[in-house]
Amino acid sequence: MNASSTNVKSSRAPAKTLAARRKSPTGSKHDDKLTAILRTAAQLFAENGYEATSLDMIADQLGMHKATLYHYVSNKESILYQCLVKSFGDLDEVMKRMEDRSIPVLNRLRLFLHSLAKAQNNDFGRCQVLVGSRPLDAGTSNEIRLFKQRLDVTVRNLITEGIADGTIKPCHPGMFSAMLFGAMNWVPRWHKEDGKYSIEDVVDSFMNMFTHGIASKRT
Amino acid sequence: MNASSTNVKSSRAPAKTLAARRKSPTGSKHDDKLTAILRTAAQLFAENGYEATSLDMIADQLGMHKATLYHYVSNKESILYQCLVKSFGDLDEVMKRMEDRSIPVLNRLRLFLHSLAKAQNNDFGRCQVLVGSRPLDAGTSNEIRLFKQRLDVTVRNLITEGIADGTIKPCHPGMFSAMLFGAMNWVPRWHKEDGKYSIEDVVDSFMNMFTHGIASKRT
Repeated sequence: MNASSTNVKSSRAPAKTLAARRKSPTGSKHDDKLTAILRTAAQLFAENGYEATSLDMIADQLGMHKATLYHYVSNKESILYQCLVKSFGDLDEVMKRMEDRSIPVLNRLRLFLHSLAKAQNNDFGRCQVLVGSRPLDAGTSNEIRLFKQRLDVTVRNLITEGIADGTIKPCHPGMFSAMLFGAMNWVPRWHKEDGKYSIEDVVDSFMNMFTHGIASKRT
Repeated sequence: MNASSTNVKSSRAPAKTLAARRKSPTGSKHDDKLTAILRTAAQLFAENGYEATSLDMIADQLGMHKATLYHYVSNKESILYQCLVKSFGDLDEVMKRMEDRSIPVLNRLRLFLHSLAKAQNNDFGRCQVLVGSRPLDAGTSNEIRLFKQRLDVTVRNLITEGIADGTIKPCHPGMFSAMLFGAMNWVPRWHKEDGKYSIEDVVDSFMNMFTHGIASKRT
């Protein structure tokens, strides 16, 4: 949870392919290359926009022939879809952990925010936030939308649980979730990895404001 | 400030052209047409993305010949620029009002959020939030960026002032501003004008969470 954000960029995909490598050396090489293609595409999509990025640009950036690119991916849309799936990182597992009632609800919310920020602030996360699923066809776009809906429901459920157990004041869980995802989704647009504040600093600062507000007690 | 969000869409531009009409009937007709073009373009940009929207599509939507369109606008980039300028609405004046220290700082912040939400949640505001200034050249894009920077500084100054006068707890003004603009910038992506909650409800709910947080007092 406390891994620095600068590690996120390079660590997730290689960790996955490392596991794959043990099983199949050939498969792992293919996966490494595919991940490199997706990462480069995600960077270019986030930088130039989806429409303005061509398969030629992705191949050029990788020093690869376009024909070789087609060995790994079928078209630009499938690249974006795979980038968006990768952007969810381990959030599926994190959502399950949010059901563990042995951890106080506000602590679980803080853990969720740290995981969300980690998933959002890397190449794939930035692509998700800056490009999104709009260029995809209705079916695949809907799949992405449903995952995001589950993230929203996870936050709403935490708030509802907190209101019920008295740790959270009566408030509107959906409104809180909308506010929270807005604040978090915007971070990849302004946060600099080499800046003064780490992603963990940002999350802790946001979480403190969400929890206790900014007004002094006498207000 | 309490005008319903459904009025925003249709009220601002006609109000301006109404004033212009009194001075110059010819000029006002031109302005009406230009505003209609910009509004249609803003809707199409927000819906399909900037790159995927052509001048032909804008002309078609207006039932206008492309040649006529060129009588009002020189190119797609200038349309986007004018949409973004319009998206700031009366925020320039609102920023000046934020310097009025006779109003308690948290009340001023609430007023600012209502004005910001009003500017953001109409055709031009949605274009600003969903498309932004990236497609513009460096010079015009910078002009838009500087205006947004002034909005950020306005919020930071309010927080700094509140910390100094004791109404706001010591906190990081820049981090608060980043959180606030994230939450606010996301609203045009999910808020439905015909939904259960008005834009004013959203702002009041956000402002209450920003001010007092969600934790119950015993937490």
